[in-house]
Amino acid sequence: MTELVFVGLGLNDEKGITLKGLEETKSADAVFMETYTSRMPDFSLERLEGLCGRKIQMLTRSDLEEESGKAILQAAKVGKAVFLVPGDPFIATTHITLRIDAEKQGISTRIVHGISIMSAIVSLSGLHNYKFGKTVTVPFADNFSETPYNVIAQNKKLGLHTLCLLDLRQAENRYLSINDALEQLWGMEEKKKQNTITPCTPVVGIARAGSNSPVVRAGFVKDVVGFDFGEPPFSLIVPGELHFMEVDALCAFAGAPVEFRGLVR
Amino acid sequence: MTELVFVGLGLNDEKGITLKGLEETKSADAVFMETYTSRMPDFSLERLEGLCGRKIQMLTRSDLEEESGKAILQAAKVGKAVFLVPGDPFIATTHITLRIDAEKQGISTRIVHGISIMSAIVSLSGLHNYKFGKTVTVPFADNFSETPYNVIAQNKKLGLHTLCLLDLRQAENRYLSINDALEQLWGMEEKKKQNTITPCTPVVGIARAGSNSPVVRAGFVKDVVGFDFGEPPFSLIVPGELHFMEVDALCAFAGAPVEFRGLVR
Repeated sequence: MTELVFVGLGLNDEKGITLKGLEETKSADAVFMETYTSRMPDFSLERLEGLCGRKIQMLTRSDLEEESGKAILQAAKVGKAVFLVPGDPFIATTHITLRIDAEKQGISTRIVHGISIMSAIVSLSGLHNYKFGKTVTVPFADNFSETPYNVIAQNKKLGLHTLCLLDLRQAENRYLSINDALEQLWGMEEKKKQNTITPCTPVVGIARAGSNSPVVRAGFVKDVVGFDFGEPPFSLIVPGELHFMEVDALCAFAGAPVEFRGLVR
Repeated sequence: MTELVFVGLGLNDEKGITLKGLEETKSADAVFMETYTSRMPDFSLERLEGLCGRKIQMLTRSDLEEESGKAILQAAKVGKAVFLVPGDPFIATTHITLRIDAEKQGISTRIVHGISIMSAIVSLSGLHNYKFGKTVTVPFADNFSETPYNVIAQNKKLGLHTLCLLDLRQAENRYLSINDALEQLWGMEEKKKQNTITPCTPVVGIARAGSNSPVVRAGFVKDVVGFDFGEPPFSLIVPGELHFMEVDALCAFAGAPVEFRGLVR
């Protein structure tokens, strides 16, 4: 059987893969992997190779973008190729092109899903999934954009929460911190004055979602901006209108101050 | 060690659990599970018990809601209790209350994430994750609500896609079909006339996300409304503005007609 199976590795380490994903990897003729789209803090290639009993070929961004994943496509034409991707394979848009190319070349493709940072963050926060609006990425200051502020403002106007992914440059080992992201957004407030990110805006910072030591901290911007979240990866939620059940959860799991009770609509 | 660990089972069958989730379950003193919040079409309790080597106690909605999960909380006071939940444990809001109750009673809690239907659907569709707005559930006709139509209209106005979860009554083995959901929404159009769901609106229907036989079908309402998606579970996406890469993906994986090319903005 010739095919290309995209397998999600999930979060944090080699145990984030599903039993189904491991089974598919064990039966592959060739196994590839990339780690540049996301950080898996406790991942070990040797341990994963031990678990699946296969040699795994690590691919760089250039293998996939400049070379268009040629090695994977060639392997998938002569046997079963598995491509291991952090999180869920297509939540980042990076690999959709590879799947389209494969289908165009007559290679059949399948997806074995993995845990996505998106649902892990929502799940950890205790906030209600159906109350999130559009997601946005906050870039580093040297790549500044007004979009994050505008998306948060738009979601808030509709009463919705905003999940902010924070930019990373994996190759340089650089991760935008929750503190820097808040300062950037707070800085925009002076220009925009839409009451979107002020010292008294409630926010939820999340570090290391999916690991054994996640940190979830809810508070007002003026307090969270100085909080030490430890190691990356980081994300940030700016809540819209809060239901009392959501405030209950933030108080119970995320150290929200008692003043959060006053935010319930 | 006394604690309560919420473990996500992921989608479809017992192989949707992660290696980490299985490891936690093997080392538990008591294992509980519920299946009423979601459908796992190919799941076998016996096979999962075989994999983890533990007896699993199945809980009903009434055990969790009327009895407030008393059995779980008692087990978590004297040992390590694992509670297995389809998908990701807190994407449905049902179990947040149990976690709050546990923390209030001094029981420490942890989450081992599972694959959520939310990210699986986005991933399967090939649409871009950051272009989705608020999610909505379409209820059965006997529980009719204007909310789904309004949410789709609001998202579209912002150029955003809408993920529509379709209602289910697991106990009665009833699942709202994609066809019925489309008819319901299309019916609203006559009243609201906002050009939200017309015969020529592009939609994407998805059946059995996360299974070995997912069906993803993109087309115009007038065509998809008659398409046979087979067995549940079902979901529906109403796209907002489409990027040409998204249309490429819908044509390559979801049988979108060539007229979709004309929708690119």
